[in-house]
Amino acid sequence: MSESRTHSSGVAILGSTGSIGCNSLRVIESLTPSRMQVVALAAGTNVQRLADQIATHLPELVSVDNEAVAHDLRASLFARDIDLPRIVTGEAGLVEVATHPQADCVISATVGAIGFLPTLKALEMGKRVALANKETLVMAGELMTKAARKSGAELLPVDSEHNALHQCLRGERREEVRRIILTASGGPFRTKNRAEMKLASVAEAMQHPTWNMGAKITIDSATLMNKGLEVIEAHWLFGFGPQDIDILVHPESVVHSMIEMVDGSVIAQMGVTDMRHAIQYALTYPDRHSCQLPPLDLTAISGLHFEAPDHDRFPCINLAYRALSEGGTLPAAMNAANEEAVSAFLNERICLTEIPQVIETVMNDHRNRPANDIQTILETDHQARLAAIATIETLSGHKEPQNA
Amino acid sequence: MSESRTHSSGVAILGSTGSIGCNSLRVIESLTPSRMQVVALAAGTNVQRLADQIATHLPELVSVDNEAVAHDLRASLFARDIDLPRIVTGEAGLVEVATHPQADCVISATVGAIGFLPTLKALEMGKRVALANKETLVMAGELMTKAARKSGAELLPVDSEHNALHQCLRGERREEVRRIILTASGGPFRTKNRAEMKLASVAEAMQHPTWNMGAKITIDSATLMNKGLEVIEAHWLFGFGPQDIDILVHPESVVHSMIEMVDGSVIAQMGVTDMRHAIQYALTYPDRHSCQLPPLDLTAISGLHFEAPDHDRFPCINLAYRALSEGGTLPAAMNAANEEAVSAFLNERICLTEIPQVIETVMNDHRNRPANDIQTILETDHQARLAAIATIETLSGHKEPQNA
Repeated sequence: MSESRTHSSGVAILGSTGSIGCNSLRVIESLTPSRMQVVALAAGTNVQRLADQIATHLPELVSVDNEAVAHDLRASLFARDIDLPRIVTGEAGLVEVATHPQADCVISATVGAIGFLPTLKALEMGKRVALANKETLVMAGELMTKAARKSGAELLPVDSEHNALHQCLRGERREEVRRIILTASGGPFRTKNRAEMKLASVAEAMQHPTWNMGAKITIDSATLMNKGLEVIEAHWLFGFGPQDIDILVHPESVVHSMIEMVDGSVIAQMGVTDMRHAIQYALTYPDRHSCQLPPLDLTAISGLHFEAPDHDRFPCINLAYRALSEGGTLPAAMNAANEEAVSAFLNERICLTEIPQVIETVMNDHRNRPANDIQTILETDHQARLAAIATIETLSGHKEPQNA
Repeated sequence: MSESRTHSSGVAILGSTGSIGCNSLRVIESLTPSRMQVVALAAGTNVQRLADQIATHLPELVSVDNEAVAHDLRASLFARDIDLPRIVTGEAGLVEVATHPQADCVISATVGAIGFLPTLKALEMGKRVALANKETLVMAGELMTKAARKSGAELLPVDSEHNALHQCLRGERREEVRRIILTASGGPFRTKNRAEMKLASVAEAMQHPTWNMGAKITIDSATLMNKGLEVIEAHWLFGFGPQDIDILVHPESVVHSMIEMVDGSVIAQMGVTDMRHAIQYALTYPDRHSCQLPPLDLTAISGLHFEAPDHDRFPCINLAYRALSEGGTLPAAMNAANEEAVSAFLNERICLTEIPQVIETVMNDHRNRPANDIQTILETDHQARLAAIATIETLSGHKEPQNA
C-alpha cells in the first residue's frame, strides 16, 4: 500500500495505547491520507487496543512489554486474521521502535523514565521527536538537548503548555523575552486546605478539573509536581533559567501558556483542552493543518481567572525549582522519587501530602554530581528509587500494597 | 547637539499635543537617549503644550492650525526665551511636517480625515508610518496601501488592537490564519438598554471603561463605530476579508486582540491599557525595547470575560461591515458622516442613537464609485459631510449648536 504514497512521513509511537498514543493515531487518521504512515508502535500490556491499532495502521514493527504479552498479541492477531507485524519486546524493543529506519518522527509518549533511552536514541539519529514524556527531559535534559543539537534533530513539545510556548515564541527573539509563564489548572485541590489534601483519596486526586489524562500525570497535577516538571522541561526546551520561568494558576486551562516580552507585551496561546491540537502541531510543524475539532468559543466560558500558586500547600513546586537550580543529577533523583511516591499513593500506601515528603527526603540525601552520561543518569534513577521505596516503607509502616 | 549622535532616527509627529502625540513624546524620552530625534511637530491650537514640547525636543519644524495660532506660539516661545523653530500652518504645514527630509518615521496621530493627505505623502516618500489615525485607512485604504507597497514604506499600527494583531501575526503564515478577532471593551453602554442609550449625555458617553482617550474616539467607542472602523483598518493592514474579521466584546481590555489559526490555535496579545506600549512597538519594530511601565499582573484582575457584540443596540458595526463589503468610496462616506455625527453629538445637537441614523442615511444616499485617486476621496469626504450636516439639521430641528 505505502509504495504508491509520495512524501509520506513515517511515524513511530512509543506508548501507543496510552492517552497521547491513541490521540496521536486519531490525529494521523484525520490528516490528509497518505501524509503520514505509522511504521512502528510500542505499547506495554494492552493487547486488545494494540491489536486494533495494528489492524488499522499496519505497522511494520511492534514492541510490547514482554514475551508473554507478545504471545497474547500474536494469538489475538491470528484469531482476527490480521497479518503479523514483526514483534519485539522490552527496553530493546522500545529502542528498536524509536530508531526504526523509516520513522522520520517519533512520538515519545510513554510515561516516566522508561522513555529516556529510546527517546535519546531517536534524537541521536536525527529524528524529529514529538515529546509528551516530560520525565525524559527532567532526567537528562542536558544529554537529550546535546544529542539533538549534534544530530540536528528537532525536539517538539506535545505537552500543551510547552506546545503553547513554542507557538508564542514563533517570530520572537529569545533575548527579547523577559520570562515565560506556564499556566496550571491548579488541579483538584486548588481550593482545598491542607487537612483535606492529607485525607484525599485516590479517586479524588484523579478528578482533574479540565484535562482527561493518564493516572501518573493526573496525580502529578494534583500535587503540582507536574508543573514543577514542566518548569524543568521548559528550561531544556527553550533555554530559560529558573528565575525567568513562572507559574500562574489558571483554573479554566484556556490559556495554555504565555510569554512576557521585555516591552511588557504578553503573548498567549489559547485553545480547547484536547491534546490532539498539540500533537498535530508537533507532527506538522512548521505547517499548520486545518483541524476538524470545534474551535475555542470564548463567549461560552464564564471567565478566565488567574492566581499565584500556593507554594506552601504545593511544596513540589519549590522542590522542582531547587532541582533545576542545583542541576546535575538532582532532577533525575527528584523525578525517580516522584514516580515511586505517586505509585505508592496510587497503591494507597502513602497519603497525597506524603508525596513531597518522600521526594524531599530523597533529594536531601542525594549526592549530586554532573549528569553527563547515560550510566550516571540510570544509576541515579535506580538509587533514588531505592531511597524512595525505603522512605515510603517507613512512612507507610505496616500498610500492605494494594492494586490501584 | 544632534551632530554627535549616531544612528539617531528622525521622528515627525502629526497631532503632537493630542493623547497619542503626548504619549509618543514620553516614549521617545524614555528610550535610550540619542536613539530618536524629534525633527518636526504638527499640532492644532494648543499653544501652551506645543511650546513645552518645543522647549524639550527642539524640533526644526513646527506646524499649527493657522496664522493666528502661529502668532501666539511665537509670542509664547519668545516670552520663554526658547529658540524659534521654523513655523508653518494649515494642511500644507501638516504635509511639510509629514514629509520632513530628516524624518525616518512619521507618527500619524491627528484625529479624523485631516490626517489623510499628510499620511499618504509620508508613505509615498517611503517613510515608516506609525498610524494612530484609523480614519485615514478607512477613507483611502487602497491608495495608502498601494503607496506603501510602491515605495516600500512600512505601515505600523498604533491602535492597540491592530498593534496586537501585528504582534500575533509575527512568525505566522497568512494562509494559515483562519480569522482575526478584534476585542472591544464594549464602551460605557455595554450593559445599557436602548432607552438609556437614547438619553445618554455627552458626559456619560465620555466615560470609557478602560482607556483614556480623546473625545472623538471615545464617542466612537460608545457607539462601537470605533470597532467598525477598526474592522476596515484591519482589512487594509492585514489583508483579511470582512468574513474573516470578527469582533469580540471583552470588557477588561486586557486581551488587545487575537488570531485564530486553521488548526484552531488562538494566539492573543495582552497588556496593560497604556498606549505607550503600542507606540513604542511601532517606533522600534522589529526590535523590542525594555519598558519601565508596570507589567501586566493577571492575578490582580478579577477575571477576563468575553461576549458577542450586540448588533441591534450597536448598528454602527453592521454599517462598517457593509461599507467594507461594498468598498469603493462608501467607507470614506461613512467615515465622514460619522465624524460629523459625532461632532453634532458632542455639541448636543443629536442624541447618541441618532449617530448611526445619520450615517445610514448618508450611506443609503451615497453613489458609490471606485476610490482610486485623492480627488475622488476628498470629494466623497466633502459631499458626505454636507449630506450628514443636512441630516443632522433635520434631526436636531431647532436645536442650537453648543460648545461641547
